[in-house]
Amino acid sequence: MSLNWNSVRPFNYYFYMNFYEKLEKSWNKSNSLICVGLDTDKNKIPVHLSSNKFPIFDFNREIIDATADLVCSYKPQIAYYSGQGAEAELKMTIDYILNEYPDIPLILDAKRGDIDSSAEFYAKEAFEQYCADAVTVNPYMGSDTLKPFLDWSEKGVIVLCRTSNPAAKDFQDITVGGKKLFHYIAQKASDEWNYNKNVGLVVGATYPDELAEIRSIIGEMPILTPGIGKQGGDVKAVLKNGLNKNKTGLIINSSRSIIYAGSAKDFAIQARNATSALLDEINIYR
Amino acid sequence: MSLNWNSVRPFNYYFYMNFYEKLEKSWNKSNSLICVGLDTDKNKIPVHLSSNKFPIFDFNREIIDATADLVCSYKPQIAYYSGQGAEAELKMTIDYILNEYPDIPLILDAKRGDIDSSAEFYAKEAFEQYCADAVTVNPYMGSDTLKPFLDWSEKGVIVLCRTSNPAAKDFQDITVGGKKLFHYIAQKASDEWNYNKNVGLVVGATYPDELAEIRSIIGEMPILTPGIGKQGGDVKAVLKNGLNKNKTGLIINSSRSIIYAGSAKDFAIQARNATSALLDEINIYR
Repeated sequence: MSLNWNSVRPFNYYFYMNFYEKLEKSWNKSNSLICVGLDTDKNKIPVHLSSNKFPIFDFNREIIDATADLVCSYKPQIAYYSGQGAEAELKMTIDYILNEYPDIPLILDAKRGDIDSSAEFYAKEAFEQYCADAVTVNPYMGSDTLKPFLDWSEKGVIVLCRTSNPAAKDFQDITVGGKKLFHYIAQKASDEWNYNKNVGLVVGATYPDELAEIRSIIGEMPILTPGIGKQGGDVKAVLKNGLNKNKTGLIINSSRSIIYAGSAKDFAIQARNATSALLDEINIYR
Repeated sequence: MSLNWNSVRPFNYYFYMNFYEKLEKSWNKSNSLICVGLDTDKNKIPVHLSSNKFPIFDFNREIIDATADLVCSYKPQIAYYSGQGAEAELKMTIDYILNEYPDIPLILDAKRGDIDSSAEFYAKEAFEQYCADAVTVNPYMGSDTLKPFLDWSEKGVIVLCRTSNPAAKDFQDITVGGKKLFHYIAQKASDEWNYNKNVGLVVGATYPDELAEIRSIIGEMPILTPGIGKQGGDVKAVLKNGLNKNKTGLIINSSRSIIYAGSAKDFAIQARNATSALLDEINIYR
């Protein structure tokens, strides 16, 4: 029952590339800002896959093969895998990307955060066990809890700043001295945390005004922006307010609108069509 | 590679007991407020176990057998297991406790937090995949991100409030309208989140003044307090400021000071002695 992942770990040039560099190359090669969120629920995949031995992996593989030339990144949300006892299929999915599409950065969406040795082990989970290029983290516990992630200088650390959900305002919008809490996060990310040039921020697409405020604080830093599609984020406003000076800087995540675009045997073609339509829409405003 | 845990799930009276009720019974039966943190690092366990097939599980089992009558709870930190690719040994550990010591509540320290369906899957990770009695969660993303956990009415949801690390103050101490952010968390926990009577808070033992402030806000609610021992928390101050009216209300976590009290073949006896000494110290001040 002890799973030894080492046997399937890829060793190639891209595996050791700095996250910023890998992302920059991927933006340029694909001419796309789209990140496909691999939030795969076994109960929502096409029925013809459901009796497969690894239905989640098989679904992901087809989605990946159908969209790889249209995206700058993939982002599996780990909760879907651990909540379904499908950690092995997450690992298989990441290994597939690392081996077949080694130039596409893989962001593990985990929103981890804890103190000292616990944070060190969470970093190992993301970067050693799963071999992700970047991981999302929660800053609530304070700067010292981010350091064990930030010290992995080749890996990306994407810090929650202003999330896409309605109650994000509960704490993130608390105002002190005329500044909101998420402004402090953005400022710290820019001034203190980016000593290895590997930090990004999560800013929900559902809050374009906040996106503009954050972009003005952080300069060229990458922003992962979920909330396009089912959550209602507006593409035009996201592009207008979120792009950096290079007309990149955004990792625009779409999950359900793409991966569940179809539910029949042609689901991967439908996913490609949905990705392609979103790419066209995004590129109008770039 | 797909692990089916269902086969080893226990089905007994305690498995379905409400967390508050199970904790109350455990406090009374053990006359102990101690929670042993099972933060097991393969590189720190006695060498005679290191070549075992399941070294982490074997270590945990001996610690548990040696301390079970002296504790009110066990708390594995999931990062240690996922960071070592040892999810199966975490599951084995929890199943062992549920089967051999079914009246001792098991808290999964995971500090999870995310929106809607991701949060639902994190709740399934804790409560279905691992069968924990309670899980720790991070409130930074807002109230709506806690609801998928809180709706599991029989399970405990222990919300980060004031953590034990030095930089906890970075965001948790931001003051607005004369109140600190962690006061808001405590107030919301008491006023809004406890609709199923299943909420607890994490408050570091290293901040006894804050512990008193939080206890005055939340009444009888359980507080999980890490930071005794290696982190320097003072037992007397924690008891004075953290006990509720029933002389309980505290789950005092100690991890490394107990599980690594010895490093030879008698490590479990040393762990028992360390637990016993801490229990004596705590009971002086109750």
